[in-house]
Amino acid sequence: MKLKNIKIVMVETTHPGNIGAAARAMKNMELSQLVLVNPKCPMGDIAYSRGSGANNILDDRITVNTLPQAVSDCQLVVGTSARLRSLAWPELTPNSLAQKVKGLNDAEKVAIVFGREHAGLTNEELKHCHYTVTIPTNPEFSSLNVASAIQVVSYEIYNQFTDVETLKVSENLEPVADSAELEGYFAHLEQVLISTGFLNAENPRQMMKRLRRLYQRAEPSKNEVNILRGILSSVEKYRK
Amino acid sequence: MKLKNIKIVMVETTHPGNIGAAARAMKNMELSQLVLVNPKCPMGDIAYSRGSGANNILDDRITVNTLPQAVSDCQLVVGTSARLRSLAWPELTPNSLAQKVKGLNDAEKVAIVFGREHAGLTNEELKHCHYTVTIPTNPEFSSLNVASAIQVVSYEIYNQFTDVETLKVSENLEPVADSAELEGYFAHLEQVLISTGFLNAENPRQMMKRLRRLYQRAEPSKNEVNILRGILSSVEKYRK
Repeated sequence: MKLKNIKIVMVETTHPGNIGAAARAMKNMELSQLVLVNPKCPMGDIAYSRGSGANNILDDRITVNTLPQAVSDCQLVVGTSARLRSLAWPELTPNSLAQKVKGLNDAEKVAIVFGREHAGLTNEELKHCHYTVTIPTNPEFSSLNVASAIQVVSYEIYNQFTDVETLKVSENLEPVADSAELEGYFAHLEQVLISTGFLNAENPRQMMKRLRRLYQRAEPSKNEVNILRGILSSVEKYRK
Repeated sequence: MKLKNIKIVMVETTHPGNIGAAARAMKNMELSQLVLVNPKCPMGDIAYSRGSGANNILDDRITVNTLPQAVSDCQLVVGTSARLRSLAWPELTPNSLAQKVKGLNDAEKVAIVFGREHAGLTNEELKHCHYTVTIPTNPEFSSLNVASAIQVVSYEIYNQFTDVETLKVSENLEPVADSAELEGYFAHLEQVLISTGFLNAENPRQMMKRLRRLYQRAEPSKNEVNILRGILSSVEKYRK
């Protein structure tokens, strides 16, 4: 895995100072790809001033309208969350995230997604994430500034990469499926499970959420996604 | 050692936003003592606004004229430094600092000293420090925002003080399926995939081996195995 393959994704950020501070934090830690999803503020002097010299990162930022656009080419998508959700996602610490990222192979891409200043990420947005990462905090004052959260996560990753310790070998040596391939599988799965009567066509949501979590946890390779889709096709032909 | 015995000391800070952001970062990590040495800015709305609710830390701050006044009651004084000095001080990483702090006894006091936004600490000020701590950074862009540096150091200390075991939430909160349950699933899967024509009944082995690896990697819970078997049953009924 290479540091340049890591994207920092900021969703609907409202303060340009936070975007600038995030760019500075990223550059301090040798990260370079900043993606803004539907930013709620203009970029300008405030962002560049807080960026304190990280102009290249701000200049090279990519702006998109939706989170899926930001993460579709990534094999690992991690959302940051201050809260424990009722339906918990597989949860990482900043350190275990850094280890996981370092263990990926050089071709793989990672997105780490940071939510709105006051409201974080929605459950809908978290559905696109394979894991959440939570920074341990004072339970009575748990909301970090978004750029500070980016600083902590980037620091842990940089620390892990500059560490002399040997590379952890990836658990799955085949190229991992990207987010778009997984989404294609989930759409196909939902459609087949409605046909077989397993899913209620009117309310497939809760069950699909569980199935997504299961398959995301396995981090399937591209080949494995093809195999799983082959199974679905065989079921579709089965009745004919 | 107790978290409340740790002082964060900011020397000649020029921007009130950084003092507010530092207070927020401290409160996130359960630190409470903020000491300002000869601050170069008025405290006011900007500091409180960036503090985002860490008012008690800003209200309780202590202001002194010189660094020796700030650190005189401390057993361990650590200065932060971005640069390697010609006359090198004993140098800590944020993690080794956190370990050292945690190892102190409950009566001891610690000061961690952060310098000016643009110039850091002087050699004269570093003379009052027993150690320096350096946050690993991009050698070509090594200056962290002072509040970000406080965030990283406070985070490492808080991490060290909180029981890491209780924070590491299991990746799967439900009871994991045992081997017999998984074998039951694989047998059921093989039988259904032979019916649908996906598997060649004479030689299902290679493909089943791949599918086993995929599902084993996900470490499914008991509930998830039941869901997966429910899907297989729905496929069996599908043709009838």
